[in-house]
Formats: sequence, C-alpha cells, structure tokens
Amino acid sequence: MIIVTRPGVTEDEIDQIRERVEAMGLRTHISRGVARVIIGCIGDEERLRHLPLLRFPGVEAVHPVLKPYKLASREFAAASTTVPLGPVQVGGAEFVVVAGPCSVETEETTLATARFVASRGARGFRGGAFKPRTSPYSFRGLGQEGLAILAQARRESGLPVVTEVMDPRQVELVAEYADALQIGSRNMQNFPLLSEVGRTRRPVLLKRGMWATVTDLLLAAEYVMAQGNLQVILCERGIRTFETATRNTFDLAAIPVLKRETHLPVLADPSHGGGRRDLVPPLSFAAAAAGADGLLVEVHPRPEEAWSDGEQSLDFGEFGALMDGLAPFVAAAGRRLAQGPPQAAPPADGGSRVSAE
Amino acid sequence: MIIVTRPGVTEDEIDQIRERVEAMGLRTHISRGVARVIIGCIGDEERLRHLPLLRFPGVEAVHPVLKPYKLASREFAAASTTVPLGPVQVGGAEFVVVAGPCSVETEETTLATARFVASRGARGFRGGAFKPRTSPYSFRGLGQEGLAILAQARRESGLPVVTEVMDPRQVELVAEYADALQIGSRNMQNFPLLSEVGRTRRPVLLKRGMWATVTDLLLAAEYVMAQGNLQVILCERGIRTFETATRNTFDLAAIPVLKRETHLPVLADPSHGGGRRDLVPPLSFAAAAAGADGLLVEVHPRPEEAWSDGEQSLDFGEFGALMDGLAPFVAAAGRRLAQGPPQAAPPADGGSRVSAE
Amino acid sequence: MIIVTRPGVTEDEIDQIRERVEAMGLRTHISRGVARVIIGCIGDEERLRHLPLLRFPGVEAVHPVLKPYKLASREFAAASTTVPLGPVQVGGAEFVVVAGPCSVETEETTLATARFVASRGARGFRGGAFKPRTSPYSFRGLGQEGLAILAQARRESGLPVVTEVMDPRQVELVAEYADALQIGSRNMQNFPLLSEVGRTRRPVLLKRGMWATVTDLLLAAEYVMAQGNLQVILCERGIRTFETATRNTFDLAAIPVLKRETHLPVLADPSHGGGRRDLVPPLSFAAAAAGADGLLVEVHPRPEEAWSDGEQSLDFGEFGALMDGLAPFVAAAGRRLAQGPPQAAPPADGGSRVSAE
Amino acid sequence: MIIVTRPGVTEDEIDQIRERVEAMGLRTHISRGVARVIIGCIGDEERLRHLPLLRFPGVEAVHPVLKPYKLASREFAAASTTVPLGPVQVGGAEFVVVAGPCSVETEETTLATARFVASRGARGFRGGAFKPRTSPYSFRGLGQEGLAILAQARRESGLPVVTEVMDPRQVELVAEYADALQIGSRNMQNFPLLSEVGRTRRPVLLKRGMWATVTDLLLAAEYVMAQGNLQVILCERGIRTFETATRNTFDLAAIPVLKRETHLPVLADPSHGGGRRDLVPPLSFAAAAAGADGLLVEVHPRPEEAWSDGEQSLDFGEFGALMDGLAPFVAAAGRRLAQGPPQAAPPADGGSRVSAE
Repeated sequence: MIIVTRPGVTEDEIDQIRERVEAMGLRTHISRGVARVIIGCIGDEERLRHLPLLRFPGVEAVHPVLKPYKLASREFAAASTTVPLGPVQVGGAEFVVVAGPCSVETEETTLATARFVASRGARGFRGGAFKPRTSPYSFRGLGQEGLAILAQARRESGLPVVTEVMDPRQVELVAEYADALQIGSRNMQNFPLLSEVGRTRRPVLLKRGMWATVTDLLLAAEYVMAQGNLQVILCERGIRTFETATRNTFDLAAIPVLKRETHLPVLADPSHGGGRRDLVPPLSFAAAAAGADGLLVEVHPRPEEAWSDGEQSLDFGEFGALMDGLAPFVAAAGRRLAQGPPQAAPPADGGSRVSAE
Repeated sequence: MIIVTRPGVTEDEIDQIRERVEAMGLRTHISRGVARVIIGCIGDEERLRHLPLLRFPGVEAVHPVLKPYKLASREFAAASTTVPLGPVQVGGAEFVVVAGPCSVETEETTLATARFVASRGARGFRGGAFKPRTSPYSFRGLGQEGLAILAQARRESGLPVVTEVMDPRQVELVAEYADALQIGSRNMQNFPLLSEVGRTRRPVLLKRGMWATVTDLLLAAEYVMAQGNLQVILCERGIRTFETATRNTFDLAAIPVLKRETHLPVLADPSHGGGRRDLVPPLSFAAAAAGADGLLVEVHPRPEEAWSDGEQSLDFGEFGALMDGLAPFVAAAGRRLAQGPPQAAPPADGGSRVSAE
Repeated sequence: MIIVTRPGVTEDEIDQIRERVEAMGLRTHISRGVARVIIGCIGDEERLRHLPLLRFPGVEAVHPVLKPYKLASREFAAASTTVPLGPVQVGGAEFVVVAGPCSVETEETTLATARFVASRGARGFRGGAFKPRTSPYSFRGLGQEGLAILAQARRESGLPVVTEVMDPRQVELVAEYADALQIGSRNMQNFPLLSEVGRTRRPVLLKRGMWATVTDLLLAAEYVMAQGNLQVILCERGIRTFETATRNTFDLAAIPVLKRETHLPVLADPSHGGGRRDLVPPLSFAAAAAGADGLLVEVHPRPEEAWSDGEQSLDFGEFGALMDGLAPFVAAAGRRLAQGPPQAAPPADGGSRVSAE
Repeated sequence: MIIVTRPGVTEDEIDQIRERVEAMGLRTHISRGVARVIIGCIGDEERLRHLPLLRFPGVEAVHPVLKPYKLASREFAAASTTVPLGPVQVGGAEFVVVAGPCSVETEETTLATARFVASRGARGFRGGAFKPRTSPYSFRGLGQEGLAILAQARRESGLPVVTEVMDPRQVELVAEYADALQIGSRNMQNFPLLSEVGRTRRPVLLKRGMWATVTDLLLAAEYVMAQGNLQVILCERGIRTFETATRNTFDLAAIPVLKRETHLPVLADPSHGGGRRDLVPPLSFAAAAAGADGLLVEVHPRPEEAWSDGEQSLDFGEFGALMDGLAPFVAAAGRRLAQGPPQAAPPADGGSRVSAE
C-alpha cells in the first residue's frame, strides 16, 4: 500500500498514519517530495485493506500494490489450469463448444438439440432448469423435472451437462445432475451462492456480471476457490453500456486481459454478448481469435417457438454453419475444434451424479 | 405490442405473424405505410412478451406498449403508498432518516450510535449483520450475534431496525429481528431471495442494483409484491458509470422518475451514492429537494476505525450537522423532519419479532 | 509520480528507470518492499507525464501524484472565483438563473421569452443561433440573424446573453454579440475551439461532455485558461450511461466534487440533464441544494411548436412555477434568488459588443 | 412514426395530434386497443422528427420507424462501397492495414517507420501532425512541418497517408498533403469540421466517438456525405465504460452491426481500443475475424521514447509479429493480406496533393 499525503501535512499526522499502519504489523518507509510525503507500507497489505485511510487527517490518496485476488491470480499458478467438464478438459489444446437451449422446455426438443449439437462437434450441453428472469411473470424453468431431462440428454448425446443454479438451497440437488454448475451473470456477486458451490467438488462456470470489472469477476472466482473448489471456468458475456444496438456490449478485450491475469480457463458467450443470432458467428470467430478457450452458445430446434431467448438462439442449420465457419479461426489460433460426435459417453463418476435414473 | 415489418415484407409473412399473435388470444390491426406495415396487437400483451418476434421473417422492430410491471405501477395504485417501518410511516408527510453503521461491530459502538442518531432525529436504525463483500477475505459481519445487538439497539433507542439479508435460508431468522429486510444492491436480481422476502410480512427495503435501470428496479419490486408482500421501499444508491471521482454515480433523476412511475416510497443512500463523507450532505440535501421520502445514511462513532465503509461514514458531529443542514431543505420540499428522540418505543408486535431475548 | 515494479524486477531494470527519470530533471527515492520496489519521483511531475513508463521492463503500475490541471485547481486559487455575466457575478452570493429557448427561432418568440424570463427573476438569457444537431437534416440555427435577435433581446430585457459558438472561425463574430460564449457538450474537447475562445476576453460557459470525467472537464477549462482567459463557468448537464428513462444521467455529485476541486463557478442544466420538462423542477431544486451557482434552463412560449428540444422546454407558466418553487431551496442553500426584472440594462462595454445596431 | 397515447386519452387530444401530423403532410391511421390508441403516421417521417410529440396532451410514447440516416444506410446502397486510399481500395477483398506512429516526431523516426511497415505489408501510413491532447500542456504535434514529413514518407514508402485534421481552418491545408483526412474520436460530432471535410473530395476516415452509439456514428458519416463526399471509412476504436482494465472498451460487435447497417467500409483501431501493446494482437485478430475491412495500428521504432501513446504502440519486431499472426485470421475471414512492400508508388493525382515539394 502506498499512502500519499496532502500538501501541508504535519509531522503529527504522519506519525499517526505510521503508528496505525505499524500497529497492523507492517513496516513503513517515508519518502519526502516537494510538497507531499509518500508512505510505503511494507508487509501483508491485506491487513490494511479495510482501513479507511482516506479518513485520516493529511491523507490525499491511497494506492494498493497487490491484486486483491490470490488463488485466481497468475502469481498463484503461473501455468494455465485446465478444468474438467465431464471427459473434456477446458483450458487446454481443445477449443470447447458448449451448446444447447436457453431453457429446458420439453424432453423432445432438449434431446433433439443435444443429439444434434453433439453430432456437429459440441463437447458440452447447456440448458437451464432454473431460470433467472427479469420479470416474475416470465417462464422460470421446469426445475427438477428439467434436471432429469438434462441427465437423459447426457446419456443420449454423450455430452457433459452445464446448468445454472440460482439458490444455495438447490446447489446439492443441481450438483447431483450437472457436470458443471453455472453461476449466472446476475448472481456473480451472490456471495452465499458462491460459497455454497465452492463447497462442492463440481466445476463451476462463472459468468461475468453485466456491471462487473475484470477484477470483480476474479474476486468472485476467489470466493469459490477460497472454499476449496479450484475448478472455476470464467465466461465473458457482455457488460452494460449506453449502446443499445446490442443487448450487451461484448467486452472482447476482457478475454486476453483475463488470460494474462488468471490461470483459469475463459469461455465466451456470443449469444448474450450480442443478443441477436446474426451476431453469434462474428462474435464467436472473434472470441476464438482473441484466445478464448471455448464458447457457450444457445441453440434451439425452432427458435421462433422458444420460451426464452429465441431472438438470440441459433437453429440447427445455423449452428452447423457456425461450427463450419469456426474451424479455420480455431486452427489459426493454434487450437483444435472437435468434429462429429464424442467418442465415448462421459464417465459415470460414482454416487455423486445421477447418471441413470 | 406494435410490430413493424421490414420494407418488402410479403403477405405470407404478415399472415404468419398475425396467425401467431392471434393464436395467443390477441386481435391484430394492420396499418399499411409507404414501405412498411404496422401490426398493432390488441389484448393481453403479457402473453406475447416471450415470443421472439424479431426471429419472424419480415419483422424489423417490436415496441411493447405496456409497462412490464403491474403491482408496482401508478396504474395499479394511483395514490402513493406508505410503508410502515416500525411505528414510522415511510412515504408520507415525514422525511424519514435511517442511520447507523455499515456493519454491526460491537455492542458498545452499535448502541452508542443508535442512541445518538435517535437523539438527533433519525427514525430508523441501520446496521449490517450479514455483509456482502467484494473480497472473500474481508469482514463479513457478525451474523446472528449482530442481529441480537440490533435488537438491543432497538430497545435502547426506540428506533425500528433495518438490516440486510443475503441468503434465502436466513430470511426467517433475520425477519425475527428486523423491522424491515434490506435487499442489497448486488442482490437486486437475486430472484429466489426476492421471492423469499416476498413470502414474509416484513417490509422490504430494496436497493437499486448498480447495473439496473429504473424498469429493472421496479421489476425486482414486482417479484416481492407478486408473492403477496406489497410493503416495498425503494432506494436509489448510485449506478456504475465511467466516472471515477465518485464510488458510484448517484442517479438523482431516478428519484422523481420513480415517484412518477410507482406508488412505492423512495429513499436515497447518499453514503454509497458518493462514497465519500464530504459528499453526504450535498447529496442528502439534493435528494430531499428532488422529492425523496427519506435517507439511508452510514454513521459510526469513529469512522477511521470502522471495519467497513469508514471512508463514507459520518461521525457523530458530522451526522448532527447533516440533520441541522437538512432541515430547511426538507421544509422547502413541504415535508417534516423529526427533531430529538422518538416519543415512544416501537410497538412489540407479538411473537414474530425478537423484541427481548 | 510513483512507480511500482513487478515482482522479480532486476537491479538493471531499476537503474534504467531511475536514469530515465533523473534525465528528466527529477530525483528518485527507492523503497524496497517484500516483492516489489517503489520508486518515488521527486520534482516537476509534468515532465514525466508523456513517458510511457508502463513500457519499461519491470514496471507494473504508475501513480501520478499531482492533478493534471493547474490554473483551474483550488491549489492555484483557494478562494472561489466569480465570473461576470454582463452586470451579474456568477459564483457569488446570487444564484443565477440563465433561461431562454433552445434555438433562436423568430424575433417575436425570442423577445417575448426574454422579457418574460427577466420579469420572473432570470439574470441571463440563453438561445442558440448556431446549433449542433445530431442529424444533418435538423434545423441548425439562424446564424448571424439569430445573433442580431439576441442582441435585441438583451436591449429589451436587460439580460446579458449566453450563446453557443461551434466553429473557431465564428468566435470573433459571436463574441461581438454575446456576453458569454457557450461551448456545447459535444465540443468540450474541440481543442482549437477552446484555444480560440481562450484568446478572447469574453467569459466562457463550458458544458461537460457526455463522456467526460470531472478531470476531463477541468482539463478542458485549463485549455481556455492557458490562453489567458480565466473567466470560465462550468456546467454539469448529464453524462451518458445505460439508463434510458432519462435523456442523460444528471451527475449531481459532480457539482460538489467540482466545487471542491476548482475555484470556478458551476451551473447545472436541468433541461438536458433529464430531457423532460417534468424533471426540470426536481433537478433544479436538487442542484441548488447541492451547491450549484445557478441554472441554465430552456424556456419557450409554446414548447409543442419549438423547432428543437420542445420536450424538455418549459412554457411560461412552468417557468414561473419553477422560480417560485426554487426560492426556498436557494434560501436553504444560503444564496439569493433574484425577484422581478433586473434593475438596469447591462453596461455597454465599448466597441467589442454590438449593443445597438 | 408510431404514436402511442396514454390510457384515458380524449377524442379531442387524438384530433389535435392528427391535425398536427396531417398539417406536416402525412396521413394518419388510427388503431384502438384496450386502453390506448395507436396513431400510425404514413409519409415522410423526417418532417416529424423535430416535433416534440411527447409534449402533446395524451401522448405516452413515440416510436420512429425509419433510420435517421439515409446516404449511409444499406437501403441507400445495398452493395458494399469501396473507398480509395491512394492506390488501395478499402472495403474490398483486401484487408488493409494502416500503420504508423501516433504523432509525427522527427523525419528520421517517421521515414524509418513508414519504410518498415510498408515492407511488412501495411498498405497505408498513419501519423498525426495535429494532435488532440486532453491536457493543454502535452505535445500537440508539429503542424505543417509534420505534414511535409508525411508527404516525404509517402514518397519513400509508396504508402498513402492518413492524418488527422482538427480545425475546419486547416482542412484545405491537410487535404493538400493527405490521401485521407482523419476525424478523431473527440471530433466525431464537430459538425462544422464534418461539413468542411464533406466539401473536399478527399476520403474521410471517421473514428467513433467514445460516447457515440452506432447510430450517432452513422449520423456523423451522414454529415460528411450530405455535403457530397461519399467516401467515408468508419473506424471502431472503443467506447467509454466503467471498466478500467483497458483504456476504452473495444466494442467488437459494432463491426458486424455496422457492416449490416451501412455500405461503408469499417476499420478497427486495436491500439486505442485496448490502450496496451499486449492487447493489440488479440484485438486485431478478433477484428479481422468479425469482418473488419482493415486496421489502424500505432507503430514506433522506440515506443518507450515516443512523445505520445508509447504504451500502446508496437515496436518494429512486434509489428512484424502482428502481421505474421494476422495472416491466417485474414485468410479464415476470406480476405487477402498484403505481403511485402507495395508494388508501385501511389499515383500522383494532379494538382490537389503535394506529392513532391
């Protein structure tokens, strides 16, 4: 921590600051400039973070030196981490496409979608059983019935399943069915929920809040990791800005910034990023080019009949075209894109997941 | 709902749109312009909201006609609603100041603060027992021990208590102690939590999310109200923008916009709005001038020792000066500001609240 | 300037930084922490500003110590400056309301408006002869004919005139007619224009850009002042954010932040801030409460027929009600609000202004 | 234009709206819903744009039907336009990289940079002789001396030159030297300047304002085009948001949105978009993947000694690596990227440009 004083600071004020910092177990180092004094604080900066130093007489500015996140940082783990999504590793050489409907609607549409996206190279299946909706009058998901359909989709398609959990009381239930627990954008700072998924041993797919800086996102990951669950996959999905031509502003630069700051894998969600199906291909290609580890894409057999997000969902033909178009960009980025269905079903991993009910 | 077609739309495309809308039980009305056709949909617009009309061939734009919120709207209740906070009515002639520390830290500082703010005209006491913190390494509140201290503060000061609840599993517990349940900014779209507080009969203080439009805030209130709890108090506390001179950008205009759109009371939080103690008085005066129904202010006996938010908390002298300075602005706004301590303790309301343990 | 190194910085890298800083004529002071080294740079920080220090090997962060503006800062002039607007002083005890139409349309409506607003306590008259319009197909002002009408309005109403200048080639012309030169929001960083008005001796009313931080606004003022014209009046008028309920987001907190950072007077524009006439009164009252030195308000005899900004313009009755409503808030803020017409016409100030043609 | 009334609108109010709209030469078409009436206005919507319809009694909402820009729209020209930059066509099969220093500093560094970037496949040279700087105390460019150096760089490298013009009084001068006139971000709504470059016959490179929506950008292009100069190249360079990890938020999705809305070519500026050299390659690759027609990149022989923007400039080695890395992404996007120096010097186009002084 670096503390900068106001011009005209008194020696008493400097002493008061030093004493307070030293009482927290740090050493101080004084550097006197023309008008201001700079107080360097040497030691465990974490102890100073909550101190309202700007309230101290004579203090003008305070600059932290360390990042506020630890486990998520490249300083903690210099090499990139891969996180398992069923049999697939996210964050490695393979560019992993996770596709599926916004919500699980019926068994028929869900299974058809899973089979189709698997046949075209998707390596994960997404679908919401519990849906956060801005209006209380919108469809909010099938709940446990939806989870059972997802488990069936996994069996039939061979794809591991990612689904959202919104309520700490449902983490255990969702973890029984899902290969990865999705934390949605609106819950990125739902701290009890983050702690609860941190206590499971399921991988967590953490979507960036539409108000969140990159630092906020990494601190949210830190909440999960601090509970002992280091398997976190991040996902850029757009932030809220003044631009109204798109549903959100897809913050492409966050992808390379995250790849530099953290060892965790980073996906991109081109469906929410743009909010329109015609933007899904260019945003997907760009995300691959910028170094993303994969995509989260909404696909529906008949988007014009979808119960949610139909405007940004691809139909089967559009998804096939996306995968075809994506291949050369993934190759240019030095990654592999799967072709055709997965070779084997995801492993049954014992009692913790409902792989056949 | 008004649907605008693209130039060159075909009659078949128009028919397809009409049929779909009419299948949902609405009537359609066609108006042909020079290049485009406008399809007015007459009936229950709610049924059309989830339809991805922009996916239909020939559709260029869709304009909803009705507000997406109902119970929260002025159309539902033209007259302003008052919501009880213990013995006080929020939203009526009285301008209600709710003050107290960011977090409940110790019995001594909490009780001292409650007594002081009561003596200077506060009519509610705030303090966090469960604290949402951006970093998992920050102090996160005393939990139930903090709730007990708040109950004691109520008994000693005569002030009703507002405190935050973050976890749906703790709603029942917090509701036993609190006169109003606060939903913090980060949880404004935590829908399970909103539903859960909607099932209590405690008033809810709902803070605007830093990413939320006024419409989003009213839809969050609708979540609570849709469960049967109509006692919602809204609170403007600043949104996230590019400006870094303040912690958030206090959206003052949201106060009159909300007062026009909704019958619910509206408070302002000048502490988070500016993030600096020197901004608390001007933001408070401005909020009163713009028609707010009261304030939520952070006060601490020794802000430089506070465990959280010390930089934006007022000390006792500053809070006294705030109340003195506020009085003429409240009077100019045609409202009353309390002087001195409350006349009587808040009523014990039976078994549902822990008024003496 | 404070330079923070990366962990693992080498002594050679530190030497390279020191040598570069010392070559610019500053001294350096080294403070060694646990993993990082902090290099304090003592002397004229301005010389270092353009240095791309983050390009230097081993540098992680750079923190400037000094504000980038000088003449506009409170360190340059601790006491508040008053700026003359004709016979009125802006920034002193009087709360100065400048009112008038968005654009000068006809002689009849302009003169009627000037007389009316003068009779109700306005102390300045505003109106655009050169209008910046987002679309090239919108009305762009009467030009010099509009300036002549403004001069006539000044003679008839006794109010000094504020009008916008958009083009450096027209500064001289506009300065002949106007008592103050307005720089509109879109031109806040039009540097040739800022320099040009800085070379006149006319007061400048500088509106905040909708993308500009408070620091950017003060640097824009610095451009004018650096040319020798210290008579700058600042104006908060809203910034661009995600909120669509209002035309802009009125950044109320910028008013007290500016009053602390700079000695220059600060007006508020409640017409553009909210973009709707019903928001003009609450925003005006709030601005007075927050410490603004006055207002810039759009008034039109028949707003529904205005050629621009009719939706946010007040009619005469609304303006009268605004002034009546404003009085107690101005009094609560310890300022004076004029009543009735000005006592005397503005002084003819020699050859530089066209006071009678 | 579609006008929606409030519930309870009277027949008189409806008549008043109809009469006003019909007086402007449009026809109206009434559609009566359950509570509201919808008035469709058929005819030349442009005539209604300035009408403050929300001021009319009974009006609740107004929805324009037509885009506010015409010449820039795909409805005006369905096929993509190519704009010449010297001998190169921007917007065609070739992906055009324009590279060079932020500012022209010395003849030596400028010529060396031009020769180098030409040798590595750049097809245009950029460099500022007139620089917009946030602070009046920063280096503001060499002016006409810089233009002469640019002309020399064109002769020696064979690359056409793009340089910024900030002042309408300098348009003629800059147009003598430059192959394309750059309008910088801060001047995107400097309407006199837009009109002035619209009166030249030089291509215009128009950078998006950091506060500007896509619609605002297209209206700015419309200003230029409305003067008769249809040769406009657009450039995405990032917008201002709350995120501080990057200098601006690069709005990648704006590239495909623009390509759909307009026939004009679209470049991307990865240097300003991210503000850091390490972000230039991923943003460049992503822009190519998303369908951009080329790049505008800052390159300097010794960025750590650059007089401006050193932190985001590439050195020669980094630029070479960028071009190598870019090639497969450009190929994947179905475009061509030049290799090696241009085949021939740009054509001397008569008296209008200073090609040899």
